[in-house]
Amino acid sequence: MMLKTQMALPPSDRDVTTRRRFLTASAGVAGAAASGHAFANSLADVPPREPGSPLSGRSERSKYVEISRLPEAGPGVRNIDRSDAINSKTPLNKLVGVITPSDLHYERSHSGVPDLDPAKHRLLIHGLVEKPLVLTVDDLMAMPSVSRVHFIECTGNGWENWKRADENLTVQNTHGLISTSEWTGVPLRFLIDLVGKGRGSTWMLAEGGDGAGLDRSIPLTDEIMDEAIVAYGQNGEPLRPANGFPIRLVMPGFEGNLNTKWLRRLKFGNQPWMTRWETARYTQLLPNGKAEQFQLRMETNSVITSPSGTMQIRPGYNRITGLAWSGHGKVAKVEVSTDAGQTWKEAQLNGPTLPKAQARFQMDWEWDGKPTKIVSRSTDEKRNVQPDRKSLIDQVGTNALFHYNAQQTWSIDAAGRVRNVLA
Amino acid sequence: MMLKTQMALPPSDRDVTTRRRFLTASAGVAGAAASGHAFANSLADVPPREPGSPLSGRSERSKYVEISRLPEAGPGVRNIDRSDAINSKTPLNKLVGVITPSDLHYERSHSGVPDLDPAKHRLLIHGLVEKPLVLTVDDLMAMPSVSRVHFIECTGNGWENWKRADENLTVQNTHGLISTSEWTGVPLRFLIDLVGKGRGSTWMLAEGGDGAGLDRSIPLTDEIMDEAIVAYGQNGEPLRPANGFPIRLVMPGFEGNLNTKWLRRLKFGNQPWMTRWETARYTQLLPNGKAEQFQLRMETNSVITSPSGTMQIRPGYNRITGLAWSGHGKVAKVEVSTDAGQTWKEAQLNGPTLPKAQARFQMDWEWDGKPTKIVSRSTDEKRNVQPDRKSLIDQVGTNALFHYNAQQTWSIDAAGRVRNVLA
Repeated sequence: MMLKTQMALPPSDRDVTTRRRFLTASAGVAGAAASGHAFANSLADVPPREPGSPLSGRSERSKYVEISRLPEAGPGVRNIDRSDAINSKTPLNKLVGVITPSDLHYERSHSGVPDLDPAKHRLLIHGLVEKPLVLTVDDLMAMPSVSRVHFIECTGNGWENWKRADENLTVQNTHGLISTSEWTGVPLRFLIDLVGKGRGSTWMLAEGGDGAGLDRSIPLTDEIMDEAIVAYGQNGEPLRPANGFPIRLVMPGFEGNLNTKWLRRLKFGNQPWMTRWETARYTQLLPNGKAEQFQLRMETNSVITSPSGTMQIRPGYNRITGLAWSGHGKVAKVEVSTDAGQTWKEAQLNGPTLPKAQARFQMDWEWDGKPTKIVSRSTDEKRNVQPDRKSLIDQVGTNALFHYNAQQTWSIDAAGRVRNVLA
Repeated sequence: MMLKTQMALPPSDRDVTTRRRFLTASAGVAGAAASGHAFANSLADVPPREPGSPLSGRSERSKYVEISRLPEAGPGVRNIDRSDAINSKTPLNKLVGVITPSDLHYERSHSGVPDLDPAKHRLLIHGLVEKPLVLTVDDLMAMPSVSRVHFIECTGNGWENWKRADENLTVQNTHGLISTSEWTGVPLRFLIDLVGKGRGSTWMLAEGGDGAGLDRSIPLTDEIMDEAIVAYGQNGEPLRPANGFPIRLVMPGFEGNLNTKWLRRLKFGNQPWMTRWETARYTQLLPNGKAEQFQLRMETNSVITSPSGTMQIRPGYNRITGLAWSGHGKVAKVEVSTDAGQTWKEAQLNGPTLPKAQARFQMDWEWDGKPTKIVSRSTDEKRNVQPDRKSLIDQVGTNALFHYNAQQTWSIDAAGRVRNVLA
């Protein structure tokens, strides 16, 4: 169910007069008809009612809805056999709102997806602690819990556009390594106090129970100790295996790979362990050839999800909508330009904004049919502003692979075709 | 993955000292061991890492997770052939957090589940309006939208306990006709202004496109015009057929049957239409034999989901958790009694509370092993307090079928068996 834009309605703004202006426009349907769309207005235009099938234990998707993730092998390596896939991207172009359905949450793993037996799984908490413990999943589920809506984003999200822009990419290709869920689990602070953090304990190693055993050193800042969660629930149900069943670490605002899936071990110490994941894999290559380590926080970012790459629009009224997020906290505002960044207008946020969660934005737009470029930029509550591409590249160069948060530009040609471009 | 409670930890309270008190308790694991649970503490106690299966287009549930709705035929008619089912209940005993997975959202329908073709579906808006319109689903998706987290509750939720309490019921049986989703769609106010509400237009008829063509008259209060949504999205994706695909009305805080699924018609007028659904089906039989019509708002309510009916607990530390909600607005507080309502203690709310959404609550509890009863009661921001059973029955009698929001009591015997009782 792709968004098609067929109505001729004037641009709106944030105030309450907006609806009145739409009313005025629709009172004569001439405007709509001019763009090729005439409203019908009688019961004869409505299909008859339909009988249904029996109720069930689960309700599946409609046979008319085609929606799935996209397994890929890495930047620029997209049409691959699934056994080679290293990630599977969320279809942002087909989703609405903020929550990502659990079966469509993006996947990134280094040794496939293990389906662990929760009765056998254990979490070891040890190292510089007063009392090491091994906990069962049932132990964790019996502890006090919190539920929080947060995004998780792969540090590689956006990596397709570092050097060049393939014009055939959708927003699923360019930005599909981010998803948002309601996570439920035990606050990390509770577990730290349960084992007793040793004096001088300033870092924590989190290790996954998959074949790769991905492990990362995490600095024990107050922010992380206050906000991290050992989660067993996602959108109301147990985690899916692809998202770490039976337990994962949730690290709001930080690199996806720190949100350790299939969590089996938390070790406390007084310095980072310098695992291969933080010395070889997840480091950022700088222009001078040196690599930056521990660039952990995900940045202020946004993307227009409709219209977006490979979509087709018509002249007249179009609704622009997209997602914004920041690892620093709440999204404060999103601005949209429909003239390639020359002028900007503040977009409307569609719901309550939560810290370190995605925010949905929208803006009405009257397209005059001339080629143009549309782009969004977000600002978070800490006043971080999403950079344009030139500023980002000036600072980081193009050797880098991670943390690409430049403003995403979609080009629109005279035929209304929407394409991925660099700026 | 049922909750089992095996840890011996002391009761907590809301302040930050809670974690320190757990720390003190766990520093010697004697307390835990006394209840039959000893913590292991070395890597030898943690299973080895496991290889995984390839990434995919969707991530399914773990083979170890058994979770599904429960088709039933009505109050007291529970073990039935699925073709006779009139509703299918959400497994509240197996869920965490607040969001209900879309495939587990409760179902209630009068003519099964049609799977409508969104390309053919239409919404007629007519009656006392300035400009009747027929809209396509694409028209609606091109309009300004909002995303809101709200519960929807069948007016029959709780109906099992009006006259007697079957002690074999789970919380899925007693309270599974409520679910919470993030709904996305067009504000009703926008559509009203689009067609131009005629002078004297004070009621709206909403009709579904299923075989039953359920239609209800809805009063056009400011609250309803401001908050109702013609929704096409649920938890980020298109509605499921069981939840009204391609479009449904969402009426935050009001009877489930007003949240018209498979919405095909909105008609405006100056009085209710007195359809059979509001004169015969969804009316409340009073003690004097008369029936009350248009009892539309869902009341202040709550239920402990764990421990709950048919579960088994052990003496020592237990975490009590449950859900609270109100059709009047936000949940302000939830109190829990572990001594059959003699004394009450305020529970902790696990996340941000949203208006007309469910709120998750929890409380630590040390069970002394003696038979007792546990019960919760909620208070909303309008100071409505969930009544005890006696107060409700004194007021409404037992002829009634709908709007049962009495405090739910779970009895616990000396063996730790949890059972549904009236009070």
